[in-house]
Amino acid sequence: MKEIEILSGAFNKIKAYIADNQDNSIPVVQFRTPAQLKEVINFKVGNKGVSEDEFLELLDKYLEYSVRTGNKQFLNQLYSGFNFPAFIGEVFTVLANTSMYTYEVAPVATTIETEMISLMNSYAGYTDGDGIFVSGGSNANLVAMFSARNKVLPESRFEGYDRYQKLVAFVNEQAHYSFETAANVLGIGAKNVIKVKSDKNGKLIPDELEKEIVASIQRGEKPFFVAATCATTLLGAYDPIEEMAGICQKYNIWLHADGSFGGSLILSDKYRHMMKGIEKTDSFAWNPHKLMNIPLICSALLVKKRGTLQHNITDINTDYIFHDIDTVEDLGKKSIQCGRRVDAVKLWFAWKYFGLEGYQKRIDNLMEMAMYAEDKVKENDHLELLSERQSFSVCFRYIPEHDDDLNKFNLELRESLRKSGRSIVNYGYIGKTLAIRLITANGELAKSDIDLFFDNITVEAIKFETRGQLEYV
Amino acid sequence: MKEIEILSGAFNKIKAYIADNQDNSIPVVQFRTPAQLKEVINFKVGNKGVSEDEFLELLDKYLEYSVRTGNKQFLNQLYSGFNFPAFIGEVFTVLANTSMYTYEVAPVATTIETEMISLMNSYAGYTDGDGIFVSGGSNANLVAMFSARNKVLPESRFEGYDRYQKLVAFVNEQAHYSFETAANVLGIGAKNVIKVKSDKNGKLIPDELEKEIVASIQRGEKPFFVAATCATTLLGAYDPIEEMAGICQKYNIWLHADGSFGGSLILSDKYRHMMKGIEKTDSFAWNPHKLMNIPLICSALLVKKRGTLQHNITDINTDYIFHDIDTVEDLGKKSIQCGRRVDAVKLWFAWKYFGLEGYQKRIDNLMEMAMYAEDKVKENDHLELLSERQSFSVCFRYIPEHDDDLNKFNLELRESLRKSGRSIVNYGYIGKTLAIRLITANGELAKSDIDLFFDNITVEAIKFETRGQLEYV
Repeated sequence: MKEIEILSGAFNKIKAYIADNQDNSIPVVQFRTPAQLKEVINFKVGNKGVSEDEFLELLDKYLEYSVRTGNKQFLNQLYSGFNFPAFIGEVFTVLANTSMYTYEVAPVATTIETEMISLMNSYAGYTDGDGIFVSGGSNANLVAMFSARNKVLPESRFEGYDRYQKLVAFVNEQAHYSFETAANVLGIGAKNVIKVKSDKNGKLIPDELEKEIVASIQRGEKPFFVAATCATTLLGAYDPIEEMAGICQKYNIWLHADGSFGGSLILSDKYRHMMKGIEKTDSFAWNPHKLMNIPLICSALLVKKRGTLQHNITDINTDYIFHDIDTVEDLGKKSIQCGRRVDAVKLWFAWKYFGLEGYQKRIDNLMEMAMYAEDKVKENDHLELLSERQSFSVCFRYIPEHDDDLNKFNLELRESLRKSGRSIVNYGYIGKTLAIRLITANGELAKSDIDLFFDNITVEAIKFETRGQLEYV
Repeated sequence: MKEIEILSGAFNKIKAYIADNQDNSIPVVQFRTPAQLKEVINFKVGNKGVSEDEFLELLDKYLEYSVRTGNKQFLNQLYSGFNFPAFIGEVFTVLANTSMYTYEVAPVATTIETEMISLMNSYAGYTDGDGIFVSGGSNANLVAMFSARNKVLPESRFEGYDRYQKLVAFVNEQAHYSFETAANVLGIGAKNVIKVKSDKNGKLIPDELEKEIVASIQRGEKPFFVAATCATTLLGAYDPIEEMAGICQKYNIWLHADGSFGGSLILSDKYRHMMKGIEKTDSFAWNPHKLMNIPLICSALLVKKRGTLQHNITDINTDYIFHDIDTVEDLGKKSIQCGRRVDAVKLWFAWKYFGLEGYQKRIDNLMEMAMYAEDKVKENDHLELLSERQSFSVCFRYIPEHDDDLNKFNLELRESLRKSGRSIVNYGYIGKTLAIRLITANGELAKSDIDLFFDNITVEAIKFETRGQLEYV
């Protein structure tokens, strides 16, 4: 029977793929341009369905030409790695395929999400908190800003927002672009997100924040929202939450912590101090799909005060869907989504599997691997560290002997390394300096993986240098 | 080794679960209250991780107490069924675990999403259209309303929305609550969503729409957005798009089609006429996770005019993430999300597997099963059809011999049937009359499944009637 054959074939492919994640001789990507990709995969849907063999071949090709984010040389994004129990948990989530609006249709998943939110709140220090799983960090930041808007202007939910009572938000100049998107979506306007200066390590400067708030008030505006970023996407900087909380308290402003990238650091006894003051924030975005290696998406918004999320939504809607017949809280009442994927279950399975201690070890390991990578840069004469390492991000560049345009050289080096498929690492600009950015996000990274990365980039750089020499001849 | 054992154990469970979906003797749900659930599953995460056996037991329990939405007696929601190739496609999506912002990190998935949007646009008749996969129908409606707002008031993206230029939206009084949520989120205000009268079958009345628009203009407001619902959640009514398009053109208003529930009907040569005029809309929300039985979430927003989505977002953001180095369009530029799940790949695998013809047959079958259910109601003296069937929804109630309070009887009947686990079906109110609502969403439904449902509800009703008689004695 077609289905059973496909299922067995697929299972063998899954086993092999998972094993291959550990094999460094397998490339991170078999790079193809869009045109080349269309030559090897037939993307068009036909009138008739495909055979078993064709279907199995499509599965192979999907894996073959996708980026292998579970490979330990994938150091490009703020997420990476392959989390075995979370993968299995996700497969079972898809198998049961329930939606998160009501207990009636998702009794186990509703209870698991409630449990996960409660556990995460205990780390955030929210003793009467609440929260919900959302569709990503950008959405978490949006719901946080939405909640802050509704606290200051509760009537905006019914009547609409009035820009002449100008609400103004404040974020680190290196904060994620989602805050501008959120202000745009919410009717507040992207220009009303003020970017506060950060120090040379990328941390927001509290005095600058206060200055901006005072200037805003003097302009007749209403400062209503401040976000602390933990951590920034390029330098991995953790904003000083404690000092920011003092300022927000003084001016009665909602303080949000955007821990989309680095929020999971709160699990570590050793490093939790970097988020000192988190319990004084009003909301906290935390993406377990990043440093906890849960498959995409697994993202939660926590709020300090119970009732905040219902206030946003349910007070204005009464709908057929929420019968509340089993006398439990239907999670849909707190969400701007109606149908919603079950994203908490994979997290629960992974947390059950590793235990709290296991996850602490994984997070601590990420920090140690970043330190190790930093040391590797420092001890290599060809490499220049471009910023003091803050957490899980190491920014550096290669200094060739024969090239003068370092930005161009390093850009080409990164591109060439990526397309070789041996290692993938990202880049960004610190001022006008192009920095290669290595992220330690995969909990299973070992020193040998970091060593291999620096070997790979060095080989690639030498190839470039040689090319340079030949050109000079 | 722990992982291999778990993987093999999990694979056997998956095979058994899929086979059990076809077995009608297996209950749709083993109903448990929240307290009872906590007795059978240990939801707490421990300090240490669990053993293989415990992990496998948790997988069992997750499936055992979740609602079995793949069982053919799950007729409760607007989605149901188990789509084998889509399930496999989703598992491989999770295995590769790439994010939808850049071609660089998701070359195959980006190409697949682009192909799916193009195929869906061809059905919508958008010849220069665009689109993006979003986190659900509510989100699709939000992005549509956002796009309409930004067309009328492009400066609102930067400066914020000004409620004194009052934008007003119009929807069927039976439209989904997400439009009010969207107006709330977008700063337009939930009260500025005007609910237009529908006829006895649930279709919006075009004359009433025009009256409301004229009245709004006379109040000095700015009508900017009209949504046609196809189909409504209770009666399955398809709004008259063609007539609504004429009115929207006359007053220069954005016309959106909310096909979150019934948009997939457009695949059918036989029934496509029910969405006549769809090519005249400006945007179209279509959830393949409903009638195409793709695992949750698979939801797209299509827009008629290329560039609309970038205009919303990218014109105001330039960020480190979009390098555009492979000279393809990074999909992240069109999205209010940053990291985004790959939701198009499972749809692609399913569409490849069934072919276009296969999907047409599935959709036509859904309509035939609804007709068959309607006939079953009509020919049963104990059942009363409460509304003329429009599409995939059949609304009826049971008329007992000894009970006078029909709403109470039918509510209890539905609850009791649900908790028995034999069949699950939802309810809602048509005016003040409680209607039991049966949805045909599972493409594999056969007449015998519909027969079994009516047998089950009849058995349950007779149990109630007998109870009634005993009480009278």
